[in-house]
Amino acid sequence: MEEVLFTDVTLRDGLQDQPAVLPTESKRRIGELLVDAGFRSLEVTSFMRPDWVPQLADPEQLLAAFQPGPGVARRVLVPNRRGLERALGTGAEAVSFVASASSAHNLANLNRSTDQTLAEIPQLVAEARAGGRRVVGGVATAFGCPFAGEVGDGEVLRVVDAYLAAGVDEVDLADTMGMATRRAFEDRLRRVARHVGGAARLGVHLHDGGTGVGDLVRAALQEGVRRFDVAIGGIGGCPFAPGAPGNARAEELVPVVEAAGFSTGIAPARLVQAALALGLALGRAPRPPARGTGRPA
Amino acid sequence: MEEVLFTDVTLRDGLQDQPAVLPTESKRRIGELLVDAGFRSLEVTSFMRPDWVPQLADPEQLLAAFQPGPGVARRVLVPNRRGLERALGTGAEAVSFVASASSAHNLANLNRSTDQTLAEIPQLVAEARAGGRRVVGGVATAFGCPFAGEVGDGEVLRVVDAYLAAGVDEVDLADTMGMATRRAFEDRLRRVARHVGGAARLGVHLHDGGTGVGDLVRAALQEGVRRFDVAIGGIGGCPFAPGAPGNARAEELVPVVEAAGFSTGIAPARLVQAALALGLALGRAPRPPARGTGRPA
Repeated sequence: MEEVLFTDVTLRDGLQDQPAVLPTESKRRIGELLVDAGFRSLEVTSFMRPDWVPQLADPEQLLAAFQPGPGVARRVLVPNRRGLERALGTGAEAVSFVASASSAHNLANLNRSTDQTLAEIPQLVAEARAGGRRVVGGVATAFGCPFAGEVGDGEVLRVVDAYLAAGVDEVDLADTMGMATRRAFEDRLRRVARHVGGAARLGVHLHDGGTGVGDLVRAALQEGVRRFDVAIGGIGGCPFAPGAPGNARAEELVPVVEAAGFSTGIAPARLVQAALALGLALGRAPRPPARGTGRPA
Repeated sequence: MEEVLFTDVTLRDGLQDQPAVLPTESKRRIGELLVDAGFRSLEVTSFMRPDWVPQLADPEQLLAAFQPGPGVARRVLVPNRRGLERALGTGAEAVSFVASASSAHNLANLNRSTDQTLAEIPQLVAEARAGGRRVVGGVATAFGCPFAGEVGDGEVLRVVDAYLAAGVDEVDLADTMGMATRRAFEDRLRRVARHVGGAARLGVHLHDGGTGVGDLVRAALQEGVRRFDVAIGGIGGCPFAPGAPGNARAEELVPVVEAAGFSTGIAPARLVQAALALGLALGRAPRPPARGTGRPA
């Protein structure tokens, strides 16, 4: 059976918006329960400024504490040169960069234009690869932007091309705001896949804005995509309040992918321990101090 | 496909030992997520003295707030006459009584001997049935006792016989301490089933003491048992500390039963939301005031 690779982003995208700061030890425990459930790829933290994202202020400590060993890749989000330098000082097996198709979003997210971010990409990717890390290029707002609304194919392809030219291992198209409808998603994905000669190096990062993430994943499988990001219980944003959409739910998408005839290695029933530990940790942890506005989406 | 009925006991047996007291609204929300996951039977609370079990001090309020409607039975644990009177004042569809095979445990649990408890059973069962409630008779320490150690067949059969003579709908054999090994469990179950003319009215309530609850459930299925109690994440006792064993885990036993060729109606992957909500609620809730020693096991 053909394999599909799920990356759990609970500890990064899931936690970054929570009204609580987890101790490193809680994150380590949740990471181990996610590995127990079958994940072989996890985005565990980012190297953002701790005053911007206090929830993820402990990347070095977490990577030292959480060492699941061979066969499991710990991915870290790196926003800039300083972040990459820090990441290369840890044992993280993979790094992901982020640039937004919409320059308005890039400005809000990283405090500079998409052009400015892309200008740095070739050198940063080269250094990450020289450091032996797997490299993922994330394309934020690939299916719509909260500031600009519609995002054109050209804006998306520009970022995709920059990543591929720089030599990334994978390009992830992110529906940052959970705006993609099935038709728009399918069209965009097909055009990107045709442009780059197939979906072998493409991945999809969905947020659940109510447009039917299961259908989107089925469409992506049809286009040849075999990599998806998910989080426990759709955490990210707030799963218990209306508003910003959380990540696509692991327990929803794994059965969708298995039912389509692929193997994932993940047992959703085994996520229950991780969900309970996550809830306990979030419930117990203190709220962070006030913070700035810039956060990766 | 033949059906197996799982009763979720998270809100009763799961919560009663937690170092937190949940608001009624949190319990209601968790109950609804359990129903979403497919449970059609839930033991949601007990009518114990609130100074003994402050975690379950709100049975009337919970039963008024949590009304999943037709097709879902809310079961309540009733320790005595006063508890039954309170239960009959609510809309609970099922009541469970408890008596211990070991009189030493009955004394610790209910503050009187097994004989004293059994003497009341016929009248209480009759009243519960007259009130239109489904009645379950629980046999605590049916596979071993923390005080007396070994428990004999005669001690178990005496309680089983008393329940059946009183006209209960179901008798649940409970491994209160999670002590049962496969062989001892199988032998005991077989002798009880033979004694009462089959397993049609028997159920099993397991705690996970590390003796292999999956194997015990497979053995029980072979003996004809079709009713089991479970809780999210093995909560009850503490799932995150060694010591008193928690309840058998829903996410572990549902796949065991389905793999044996039965339908359960429960999707373990859909427990993730309930587990996350449970963890958040437990993490946020305050600790209860000091309490007495008597708690149902």
